[in-house]
Amino acid sequence: MNNCDILDKLPEKEKNGLFGKNFLRTWDMSDSDIESVARSACALKALRDENISPKIFDSGIAVSMFSKKDAGMELAFASGCDLLGLTIIDMNKKLGNSNINETAGMASYMADALGICESDFIEKSSRYIKRISDSVEEAQKSGVIAQKPCVINLGSDEDSPVQTIADLQYMASRFGGIENLKGKKIAVTWAYSPDGTRSLAVPQGLLSLVTRFGMNVVLAAPEGMDLMPGVYERAEKNSAESGGTFARTDSMEEAFADADIVVPINWAPFSFLEKRTELSAANLGTYIDLLEHELRENNKQFIDWEVTEEMMEKTKDGKALLMHDIPADVTDISCIRGEMTAQVYNANIESLLKETGMRPYVIAAMILLTKSEDPKAAFKTISEKATRRYF
Amino acid sequence: MNNCDILDKLPEKEKNGLFGKNFLRTWDMSDSDIESVARSACALKALRDENISPKIFDSGIAVSMFSKKDAGMELAFASGCDLLGLTIIDMNKKLGNSNINETAGMASYMADALGICESDFIEKSSRYIKRISDSVEEAQKSGVIAQKPCVINLGSDEDSPVQTIADLQYMASRFGGIENLKGKKIAVTWAYSPDGTRSLAVPQGLLSLVTRFGMNVVLAAPEGMDLMPGVYERAEKNSAESGGTFARTDSMEEAFADADIVVPINWAPFSFLEKRTELSAANLGTYIDLLEHELRENNKQFIDWEVTEEMMEKTKDGKALLMHDIPADVTDISCIRGEMTAQVYNANIESLLKETGMRPYVIAAMILLTKSEDPKAAFKTISEKATRRYF
Amino acid sequence: MNNCDILDKLPEKEKNGLFGKNFLRTWDMSDSDIESVARSACALKALRDENISPKIFDSGIAVSMFSKKDAGMELAFASGCDLLGLTIIDMNKKLGNSNINETAGMASYMADALGICESDFIEKSSRYIKRISDSVEEAQKSGVIAQKPCVINLGSDEDSPVQTIADLQYMASRFGGIENLKGKKIAVTWAYSPDGTRSLAVPQGLLSLVTRFGMNVVLAAPEGMDLMPGVYERAEKNSAESGGTFARTDSMEEAFADADIVVPINWAPFSFLEKRTELSAANLGTYIDLLEHELRENNKQFIDWEVTEEMMEKTKDGKALLMHDIPADVTDISCIRGEMTAQVYNANIESLLKETGMRPYVIAAMILLTKSEDPKAAFKTISEKATRRYF
Repeated sequence: MNNCDILDKLPEKEKNGLFGKNFLRTWDMSDSDIESVARSACALKALRDENISPKIFDSGIAVSMFSKKDAGMELAFASGCDLLGLTIIDMNKKLGNSNINETAGMASYMADALGICESDFIEKSSRYIKRISDSVEEAQKSGVIAQKPCVINLGSDEDSPVQTIADLQYMASRFGGIENLKGKKIAVTWAYSPDGTRSLAVPQGLLSLVTRFGMNVVLAAPEGMDLMPGVYERAEKNSAESGGTFARTDSMEEAFADADIVVPINWAPFSFLEKRTELSAANLGTYIDLLEHELRENNKQFIDWEVTEEMMEKTKDGKALLMHDIPADVTDISCIRGEMTAQVYNANIESLLKETGMRPYVIAAMILLTKSEDPKAAFKTISEKATRRYF
Repeated sequence: MNNCDILDKLPEKEKNGLFGKNFLRTWDMSDSDIESVARSACALKALRDENISPKIFDSGIAVSMFSKKDAGMELAFASGCDLLGLTIIDMNKKLGNSNINETAGMASYMADALGICESDFIEKSSRYIKRISDSVEEAQKSGVIAQKPCVINLGSDEDSPVQTIADLQYMASRFGGIENLKGKKIAVTWAYSPDGTRSLAVPQGLLSLVTRFGMNVVLAAPEGMDLMPGVYERAEKNSAESGGTFARTDSMEEAFADADIVVPINWAPFSFLEKRTELSAANLGTYIDLLEHELRENNKQFIDWEVTEEMMEKTKDGKALLMHDIPADVTDISCIRGEMTAQVYNANIESLLKETGMRPYVIAAMILLTKSEDPKAAFKTISEKATRRYF
Repeated sequence: MNNCDILDKLPEKEKNGLFGKNFLRTWDMSDSDIESVARSACALKALRDENISPKIFDSGIAVSMFSKKDAGMELAFASGCDLLGLTIIDMNKKLGNSNINETAGMASYMADALGICESDFIEKSSRYIKRISDSVEEAQKSGVIAQKPCVINLGSDEDSPVQTIADLQYMASRFGGIENLKGKKIAVTWAYSPDGTRSLAVPQGLLSLVTRFGMNVVLAAPEGMDLMPGVYERAEKNSAESGGTFARTDSMEEAFADADIVVPINWAPFSFLEKRTELSAANLGTYIDLLEHELRENNKQFIDWEVTEEMMEKTKDGKALLMHDIPADVTDISCIRGEMTAQVYNANIESLLKETGMRPYVIAAMILLTKSEDPKAAFKTISEKATRRYF
């Protein structure tokens, strides 16, 4: 497998910039740190596939807090933590808990990782995760906790670093390395879903990340389906710096034309999410129902934003890599009309599963890199001990 | 303890028919595979009782999906998996999820075992479990997962192989070996419960299993309390082949007469379950309530189908082994009138606990036998290492 | 760190009075057993802080049963059990389950620890925990289980031994040893909370415990805010025996005057809890709502029972140690008016987190001391092996 030549590429001990860090947004990380996570994820997968256990913890707790159900990410977090030897405690903590210090403090007494998924509230969600993260750092400084857990954003209003680094690594494994992504065309496009209220974390996170690696990025969305304001600027700036391009269009066809990679994904417009956040703060549940109803009615005019076999034909040699942070809304399988047809979905399901299958390894990589002062030595020890995962 | 002379009796490496297999129904398994599971369960229990840890996994995940609460089986699955070193993730996945490939795929990314309990829908429940199982196999073939989890049916509309193999092993331990069950009379009889909506898995599974070992099996039930059509034929065929007998009666007394083993258990008639499945598919909840009400009213005429001390007196020397997949509905303890009196229950509670206490070991045995290419060698290693479970 | 010179102070093998025991109430334990738990908790914390793993289980299950959510104690139980190598299974079992033998039996099949939190019903809650505990002992005697789990009360109507021993150890670490608590003044005082229905476990448990160590204990509460009748006598008897004092007052100021330690905490009066238990038994939910409404209305006259900076000024040098089994009801943070002001809370949050941070270690200590025939040898082995918790 590509991109996991870990012992050569990992930073030396004195340069491990991730030691003691948290993972809230990829744009707070350096390119080389992102590559370290991707490479380490790849290496961890290779080890496990060969039945070698990369367990670095003899005991330890990982705490997850999901504000709403996300079975896939919950499994990913649990699996990734288990791989390193951590036991998962699920707290299902909701935003709105007024006493973050206590929550964070108690959750981190003995935790080596804190995974938080909280995406429903514009600005508030990421501020909540940031405050937990700050509070954990204070708890360490003041001696409340001897070892700081690594705080991982499992999906906020802004970003989903686990998903996007998993995607980066998956693309790297398909195209022969991160360096080979340079010049590849990737289409990130809005797609229709009858629900319509998905968060912006993945599209925003993807645009913010892939533009850093010299890709030709096209964002396609119907008029009004805006992301958070800062995203476009960040994507442009990244592209300019990395030697890639960033373009926007309101045509899925245009985006798909000759694309190497396509990422159809539904999201709710920023203006809707902003308004819903306000209504929620004011406890106006009835108006939220109304607002969501209006959104769904409005979305119906974009019902043709669906990936069909014809649409896939337009891509590079008709064989673009299709990516999605499943579960997807699939026409005739999970709904009457969705993000893609059943044919397209069925033709790509194995790849989609392999893509999201990277998530546990990205999570494990994040924890390993933040907990090990010398990750290179840790990998060396794991390889040399070569403990069988099962016999 | 009987029946756990594991090193002599386990199949050689080249004959381990269970490697890579799943456990959906006992009638898809050979006699010798069933005996291997029972023997291995016994051996695992003996090891643990001597404080020897049979942990074969250094890390790993077991995923459970229960469509409704079943505290006993949940604990059994968790305990059995933990014994081998697996961490349990509970998904509480409901039937009706339209996208089984995704569910199965994500659940099995890193899982070594998938336990599924889904019994409410005639035909649909077992089809659901089968589709998960097929999907997991496809995921392995296509390289989505490097190691296939063992899929275990923890209770379907058809069978409950964990419970019935646990029962087989428990009977074997009480009568000096599976071979000694030959010629023993076992009465599987319907018993009254105020709820009345229990699934058919256990009575059907028991009849299908014990008839294979030369027992004299009597099924007693009031008129109309039918099982699924195929069960009677299977029981007859099995009995004919194994040198046992299979008879039906509508008298609990007749069934209990001179019985070595009695299994009083409530179940809902097949016709009711079939109708409820239809109403559920049509989303007719009100009619389901009505249907259940009618069932309970109808059941009241069978309120005397209760195991009393007098009834127990009729059994072989008045001392038949009483079995039940507890929790039981006990008169004066959990209800006004139930499957057995408090006296009978209290006189047998230790044995009932020992019986269901075999379940974790059966689950562990299933996983060990499907994950180890050479289970004999695995047991040898466990015995020789003799790692203390705790010090 | 003080008080954890474990190898010198732990009882010799032949005197380990805790082997095979349960932890329901501190007043059933000897002083030396309580000190053993406190010291062992301290030692376990010291080991973990030095990255040494005190894992004594290779595999094993700990079952928790919480009748209502208590995130802090759930995390403490999970963390403490994990430290020793046990996996946590959460049963969320409610009081009212009629068949305690089955529950206890199934929960203890393979469990090494059972943690139960059930505090809502006067007398019934502790009787429930006692019956589980008795039932587990019977299961062992009759051979149903080979190894008895340690039953731990995580909060009942009477006591909360984990919290109070954690508090004892925390005070010991702050004042240089348990022996230095002699003569220190501790004020346990009722404090206002808008909810008002908290259980009596912590104030009762604290009074019953700290009076055994020669402290000068003052209990302050508004008229009518009574504890269970037996508590006052026990506190008086303990104080007389230990050379301390026990006094009661209806003035928070008086209690705080020159105090070394203050413990502001809300509780519901015994008479209210007794009445609510009766109404609950009679299924009179509407009257419970009414009763709780009356309690809250009545409590409003005591809204000034709030710890302010002025109140803290009255304590010894204005610097008393403030303790609370967080989460606390804090004015302007979690409510309009609560047990203490935000200033007081913020000035003490680190200490509060350290205090409750002792709970996981107390739980681990309890399990280790009851499972190890020779805890001294166990600690020696842990120290000598010095397995790194993570690398």
